[in-house]
Amino acid sequence: MKSKPAARHIFAENLRKARREMGLSQEDLAERANLHRTYVGSVERAERNVSIDNMGRLAAALGVALPSLLQEGKP
Amino acid sequence: MKSKPAARHIFAENLRKARREMGLSQEDLAERANLHRTYVGSVERAERNVSIDNMGRLAAALGVALPSLLQEGKP
Repeated sequence: MKSKPAARHIFAENLRKARREMGLSQEDLAERANLHRTYVGSVERAERNVSIDNMGRLAAALGVALPSLLQEGKP
Repeated sequence: MKSKPAARHIFAENLRKARREMGLSQEDLAERANLHRTYVGSVERAERNVSIDNMGRLAAALGVALPSLLQEGKP
């Protein structure tokens, strides 16, 4: 294990935070991003090695810039 | 087609730029990141839907922050 959180954990946490701030459920976000609800859930649990295309879709569905979803400790 | 470049194109361009600035060949970068040279080449041509884990490895191998590799028009 690395001590520094892997990118997928940072992304997972920021994605969940951004989604909740918008008052969206995982299902809402999944629908907007044209992905499956269970897929979104697994990304938010950092279980998935999410691809850049899907990261882009998720960021676009939330109306946020993708780089911001990869910044550690993003408020 | 979207008019805005997809995330994978931004990443591809920034990766190539960052690698060249460090004076590394694709093979050098591949070795540092423990990936295959042809894989790095295909990522730099935006042919691959690269995963977040490999994006993290590539950024780490270049010693740059992953979010910076996703910023459009990064100098």
